[in-house]
Amino acid sequence: MSYMPPKLLETKLLQFLEEDINYGDLSSDLVPNVPIHANIVSKQEGVICGLNFAEILLKSLNVEVSSLFSDGDTIRTGDIILQLRGLSRVILASERTILNILMRLSGIATQTRRLVAKIKQAGQKTVIASTRKTTPGFRYFEKYAVIIGGGDPHRWNLSDTVLIKENHLRLLGEEAISIILNQSLNKTSFTKKVEIEVENLSELRMALKASPDIIMLDDFSTEDIHLAIDIIKQTSDQVRPLIEVSGGINDQNIDAFLIPGVDIISMGMLTHSTLAIDFSLRIMNILPSSPERRD
Amino acid sequence: MSYMPPKLLETKLLQFLEEDINYGDLSSDLVPNVPIHANIVSKQEGVICGLNFAEILLKSLNVEVSSLFSDGDTIRTGDIILQLRGLSRVILASERTILNILMRLSGIATQTRRLVAKIKQAGQKTVIASTRKTTPGFRYFEKYAVIIGGGDPHRWNLSDTVLIKENHLRLLGEEAISIILNQSLNKTSFTKKVEIEVENLSELRMALKASPDIIMLDDFSTEDIHLAIDIIKQTSDQVRPLIEVSGGINDQNIDAFLIPGVDIISMGMLTHSTLAIDFSLRIMNILPSSPERRD
Amino acid sequence: MSYMPPKLLETKLLQFLEEDINYGDLSSDLVPNVPIHANIVSKQEGVICGLNFAEILLKSLNVEVSSLFSDGDTIRTGDIILQLRGLSRVILASERTILNILMRLSGIATQTRRLVAKIKQAGQKTVIASTRKTTPGFRYFEKYAVIIGGGDPHRWNLSDTVLIKENHLRLLGEEAISIILNQSLNKTSFTKKVEIEVENLSELRMALKASPDIIMLDDFSTEDIHLAIDIIKQTSDQVRPLIEVSGGINDQNIDAFLIPGVDIISMGMLTHSTLAIDFSLRIMNILPSSPERRD
Amino acid sequence: MSYMPPKLLETKLLQFLEEDINYGDLSSDLVPNVPIHANIVSKQEGVICGLNFAEILLKSLNVEVSSLFSDGDTIRTGDIILQLRGLSRVILASERTILNILMRLSGIATQTRRLVAKIKQAGQKTVIASTRKTTPGFRYFEKYAVIIGGGDPHRWNLSDTVLIKENHLRLLGEEAISIILNQSLNKTSFTKKVEIEVENLSELRMALKASPDIIMLDDFSTEDIHLAIDIIKQTSDQVRPLIEVSGGINDQNIDAFLIPGVDIISMGMLTHSTLAIDFSLRIMNILPSSPERRD
Amino acid sequence: MSYMPPKLLETKLLQFLEEDINYGDLSSDLVPNVPIHANIVSKQEGVICGLNFAEILLKSLNVEVSSLFSDGDTIRTGDIILQLRGLSRVILASERTILNILMRLSGIATQTRRLVAKIKQAGQKTVIASTRKTTPGFRYFEKYAVIIGGGDPHRWNLSDTVLIKENHLRLLGEEAISIILNQSLNKTSFTKKVEIEVENLSELRMALKASPDIIMLDDFSTEDIHLAIDIIKQTSDQVRPLIEVSGGINDQNIDAFLIPGVDIISMGMLTHSTLAIDFSLRIMNILPSSPERRD
Amino acid sequence: MSYMPPKLLETKLLQFLEEDINYGDLSSDLVPNVPIHANIVSKQEGVICGLNFAEILLKSLNVEVSSLFSDGDTIRTGDIILQLRGLSRVILASERTILNILMRLSGIATQTRRLVAKIKQAGQKTVIASTRKTTPGFRYFEKYAVIIGGGDPHRWNLSDTVLIKENHLRLLGEEAISIILNQSLNKTSFTKKVEIEVENLSELRMALKASPDIIMLDDFSTEDIHLAIDIIKQTSDQVRPLIEVSGGINDQNIDAFLIPGVDIISMGMLTHSTLAIDFSLRIMNILPSSPERRD
Repeated sequence: MSYMPPKLLETKLLQFLEEDINYGDLSSDLVPNVPIHANIVSKQEGVICGLNFAEILLKSLNVEVSSLFSDGDTIRTGDIILQLRGLSRVILASERTILNILMRLSGIATQTRRLVAKIKQAGQKTVIASTRKTTPGFRYFEKYAVIIGGGDPHRWNLSDTVLIKENHLRLLGEEAISIILNQSLNKTSFTKKVEIEVENLSELRMALKASPDIIMLDDFSTEDIHLAIDIIKQTSDQVRPLIEVSGGINDQNIDAFLIPGVDIISMGMLTHSTLAIDFSLRIMNILPSSPERRD
Repeated sequence: MSYMPPKLLETKLLQFLEEDINYGDLSSDLVPNVPIHANIVSKQEGVICGLNFAEILLKSLNVEVSSLFSDGDTIRTGDIILQLRGLSRVILASERTILNILMRLSGIATQTRRLVAKIKQAGQKTVIASTRKTTPGFRYFEKYAVIIGGGDPHRWNLSDTVLIKENHLRLLGEEAISIILNQSLNKTSFTKKVEIEVENLSELRMALKASPDIIMLDDFSTEDIHLAIDIIKQTSDQVRPLIEVSGGINDQNIDAFLIPGVDIISMGMLTHSTLAIDFSLRIMNILPSSPERRD
Repeated sequence: MSYMPPKLLETKLLQFLEEDINYGDLSSDLVPNVPIHANIVSKQEGVICGLNFAEILLKSLNVEVSSLFSDGDTIRTGDIILQLRGLSRVILASERTILNILMRLSGIATQTRRLVAKIKQAGQKTVIASTRKTTPGFRYFEKYAVIIGGGDPHRWNLSDTVLIKENHLRLLGEEAISIILNQSLNKTSFTKKVEIEVENLSELRMALKASPDIIMLDDFSTEDIHLAIDIIKQTSDQVRPLIEVSGGINDQNIDAFLIPGVDIISMGMLTHSTLAIDFSLRIMNILPSSPERRD
Repeated sequence: MSYMPPKLLETKLLQFLEEDINYGDLSSDLVPNVPIHANIVSKQEGVICGLNFAEILLKSLNVEVSSLFSDGDTIRTGDIILQLRGLSRVILASERTILNILMRLSGIATQTRRLVAKIKQAGQKTVIASTRKTTPGFRYFEKYAVIIGGGDPHRWNLSDTVLIKENHLRLLGEEAISIILNQSLNKTSFTKKVEIEVENLSELRMALKASPDIIMLDDFSTEDIHLAIDIIKQTSDQVRPLIEVSGGINDQNIDAFLIPGVDIISMGMLTHSTLAIDFSLRIMNILPSSPERRD
Repeated sequence: MSYMPPKLLETKLLQFLEEDINYGDLSSDLVPNVPIHANIVSKQEGVICGLNFAEILLKSLNVEVSSLFSDGDTIRTGDIILQLRGLSRVILASERTILNILMRLSGIATQTRRLVAKIKQAGQKTVIASTRKTTPGFRYFEKYAVIIGGGDPHRWNLSDTVLIKENHLRLLGEEAISIILNQSLNKTSFTKKVEIEVENLSELRMALKASPDIIMLDDFSTEDIHLAIDIIKQTSDQVRPLIEVSGGINDQNIDAFLIPGVDIISMGMLTHSTLAIDFSLRIMNILPSSPERRD
Repeated sequence: MSYMPPKLLETKLLQFLEEDINYGDLSSDLVPNVPIHANIVSKQEGVICGLNFAEILLKSLNVEVSSLFSDGDTIRTGDIILQLRGLSRVILASERTILNILMRLSGIATQTRRLVAKIKQAGQKTVIASTRKTTPGFRYFEKYAVIIGGGDPHRWNLSDTVLIKENHLRLLGEEAISIILNQSLNKTSFTKKVEIEVENLSELRMALKASPDIIMLDDFSTEDIHLAIDIIKQTSDQVRPLIEVSGGINDQNIDAFLIPGVDIISMGMLTHSTLAIDFSLRIMNILPSSPERRD
């Protein structure tokens, strides 16, 4: 993972709140603004994710938060995952934003964890990686949920790692690979890894000449994956590149890809097609009014 | 729907692009920057949504776009939904952002359309409505997709329509309804509708005294929905409030809720638990170089 | 009104401060930066408005504030409406921004309150509503002042309520009304009210066929308003639409429009042509220096 | 005045538009989106101001604009001050933002021009200056309107010109002036002018020792202004400071302050208490549809 | 100098931090997040500048700071210029941003101070002024460092002071000066000073007719400077304009320009060609863990 | 390098312009706004850098640009590096912003090129790398200049590459390396390289156990560098890590570090202590007025 100072997240989280508040919460203005105790309760089991963000947002709104859980913990239906103490209006006004963050991130973490567990049970060490197929504007949070679930974020964006794909090869033309080889050495920083995506065995053979750090086998049949692994092992005299497989792999068919030698399985569905985990906020009671606090 | 000047969307779309570009696209810098023709092709059938946004973003990047489809059209696997002509690097650098928009929005529109069709086939006029359970920062686009799919956006945010829910009632205390009645009349603008959510028939009876524009029956059994409709019809002498049902309704169980008298079915899963529709971008060929164009 | 979390207002208020500070306050840098007590005093009588915003801004600048007044209270010349304790330079540097907020908002609230009082004295229940004729960038605050004065904000923006006006009718052509009727039902969310503006009695008759929630009689003579009310009552069998009158109504001629049956009078001048209420900030004394506080 | 590249204003103007559009214009979505010709017509006479900003905003929205007028021109009731050609929806959606800019700025320019003319008729050369009593967030535009009306903007913000006022003097204590003198020389850049505000003749005498570039006589009676001018002339051997008078001067009492020797009269009401000039937008006709243009 | 409320700087400083954090600090995530004591130590002697900004940023990140130094103090190699107490990860993540601010600003302040001292030693009162040749986006901070070093900021931007240069004169044509004279009087606010840059003695003579507040002698030989001073003294009967010299003056050749009568020497190199002062951050020890603090 | 869509740079560049324009250019408002031809001319020899950014900014301001040079070309004193055609006021108002970009970036590129050339002449292939010691807010541009000069950008920010430094080791305690080893494998994405900085030979031996991709020898004497290279070669059986040296290396002492086996020399001074290259803008002539163009 990577460390993010909470203060830098606060601004982003307040923008999410602003999207829901617009020019004010018409409904919470109709209730008294009193100190309350409220709980956020899970309505499904899964892996909790997003507590960290909920806390940053709520604290910035002067709501006290406490929790027995941390991001990544397993939760059961009915668990109180967050206890809040603060003024009623600000809690009601921020409820949906916080639940939306928790819902989506816990959905992603839960799904990722399930796949990671499946691999572990199969006795494999294959890494599950996400892709850049994320919701526009929400990638940081979705990649975070993948990591919390035990997956690898893979490239966060186009500045991360060189990844030569089909369309790049097409533009480079026939002698692509040797050109890439030269260009990579000349134009890419020594601080970056280089990955090449190939669509068949002949492309693979050419790609290996460029000594990439990672080879991605895209849409390969399981037979071809076996062949590819052999070729890679034979070609690379010293350190072989990491081997990543991708292309339409999902929780149904993943077993077929748990092939020894495959280091990474990347799956777009981790972030683009997940079911949310449901939570709800319940006001427990009105707290004794503390010395004048206006908000 | 609502009309949004394209110029106002451009800024937001460029922020989505910025999220993926970060400090530059390492890979597309390795290929020649030449004018190309590329197609975006659907890899599944469904309802296309997001073309409008793709066009605004691409035009702002000086990429020419044309399409035989409009948002809301039905597409089949293999359809060319967008043709692009522009410089290779900018097309490659914006590919994922555009596909991410199309994937998610088409997923939502497709699912909404399926449910709307189901209701029409059942001979009902019930409206399918989304909720505020959307991805933080992406709500505008997700509500747009619901509308394109034939659904109703419902409240866009907390400034839209008064909606008194369980937590509000709890804060208002015993005599809640009469207070709401007075407060709504005094504090809510005449330009706003008022909706009250009830969780059982006795709450319903109280709520009706406030003459809301809309009643939401939350988590009601189908039997109770029938009873509720009768109560509402008897109580409202002139114009009865609209009747909305919600709570765990999904594409599996929706049939049970197609009850005459139910005006609206609202479903969180329209936006929080959808499967994306897959698209890919393919470079078709390099175009003859036009008079010097630098970008 | 609508509830806005103070934290979301803080950013906006700091932008207002930034407009006045630019790259620094040249003058306050010439005085010692010591803890002081300063008062904001009213130089005219009226309705105070903007205290809430002043407090949020000052607190974010580490200035302690206290007040015996709340937004909406009546003030007299010489009243101390806000007491400040903080460092001299930050108080001097934010003085004008705070006074500008108070001046304009109190001006609007005072004028609105005067008109609301006039109507109450005439024994009427007519609502005074503002329009969208506000200062660009400052609408939220101006609508807030109208509400504090006892007026109705009316539409906050173009996403609020459908309002079909002359120019829309012109574009819709001859068969406008029936088209609107259909379109409204098909394209407008059930959560929104629909208002139609008419300029004469024949337009009114057509508009009523669309069963709008609100009818706006624009620039009607008082005689025509009487006729319109009769037509509306006769045409609407069940619930008649609300009746709003507008067009050049001001504090001089408003009495003529206090006609039974008129529910709302909307007036642009509430926000576009108001006289500010004057306030000034006076440093009372230098406070004993507390344990080292640097700001 | 000062030159501002149009591109830098565009962003600000689009933010004003965004305030009114929110998440879309519900009403203009109900009309066909066709090319139209529309006029903006004045409903009052006065000095037009804001055309420049209207043009920048409209052009950025792909609306063609033409006008026979320029900012500062005199207009009469019924004058077509701006002709627009563009798509109907974008014109309707931006109508109110543009009118709000024109209304307020023309109101300020008109009032300023009237006062400037009054002075000219009285055979004086006194400059009319505005203050920093402007609407938060809109100062640039309001100062622009003052200049268009023939007034002087005075300080745009706290980084402009040193201005020592009552509260500064109070903090500086007894020996204030000599300290200011030293500090100004030491701490203020040679590129800045220094102004001192005095409230009586004894303060004036002290202030003159600091050789300020400008002296502001605040709330002086006309008699005291005469005395002050004499003192200033006697004290300053070479170049006397400019003399500015201020404090409750308005269009009613300004004549009393047209005293030879007074160089500047500054008036807060120029920007804080003006009546807007009214304009309206009228769709003239639908234009023949040009080759496919989507927006 | 000019006073800037710390809160307004915080946002800007957090943006600088964000530039370095991007989507998180990969490395500090690998170490325990514990309370630590760390020192920032100077590795060179010079004038410290930027402490004020470091404190604002660190406080906003919940790091306690203390220092025995203030901006402008002389430091020696090995001095502990800032002591920090806070969580390890946030200190490591903000280290480089803070050091970069200190490095560059102390470099500028040190160089400015050296030149100011040189002039003082030569018994002159000439002011050293910076120019607008600053790093884009960082001007506020660089001008601040010049002031801390004892220099004059000169124009902060194009809204500060009128400065007529060679290119303006060229556009004004032959009769330039008289036109400027008129235009300045008519179009420039009385609150602004007017400076004219001349490139030879004949331009100087023309410029003096416009009675500018400041004359800039650009790229004059020392002989011509002497002549220019004479001309200026003779021409100006009452108060002569300030005399500024500029053009390729640096720490090598500055002595030649310490000519009596020269009021200001402006030097671009103060901000565009400075050597940074080096600092480093050293973790001293891990602090006893205080009652649970999560960040 | 990495590809950045020009549109994304435009916003940033306009912010730089805004810093200099503030609320308008007082001086260029005094000259006629006519179409002109102007040249930007180099006043020193060096490597030109920033043309790309100048073009994006100028085009967005409707100024036509042409050049015979590209970023990275060698220029001589007097070379016309950019020709502009546009309105006089916008060219004058943007002059300084453009020159400031060119000055600083060309200074960095020139210095980097000189060092790269030195190494090539010495027959070495050592890479020159920059650091994160850049001007806050301007890093993207400064790293770009390093690349143009032939250097390597090294880490753009803290999300790029894991880099374990002295302070991290101190927090990890005695058994640091083995912990890092495990943590890196578990917590760092396979897409990232890992670098470890060591301060002596014993740290080096420990670090090598973690099999980093890169080893940084910080502040090593040349003798110790020789020893370190031997140790690294002996320890790494297959692929040895890249070897980077850093710490006080500059253009004076760099020769000593051109040791075979050293892959990278990183130098903070490339960005933190450079001398700017000087350019000036000269108006050549006024162009014949083209059909009405207002800006």
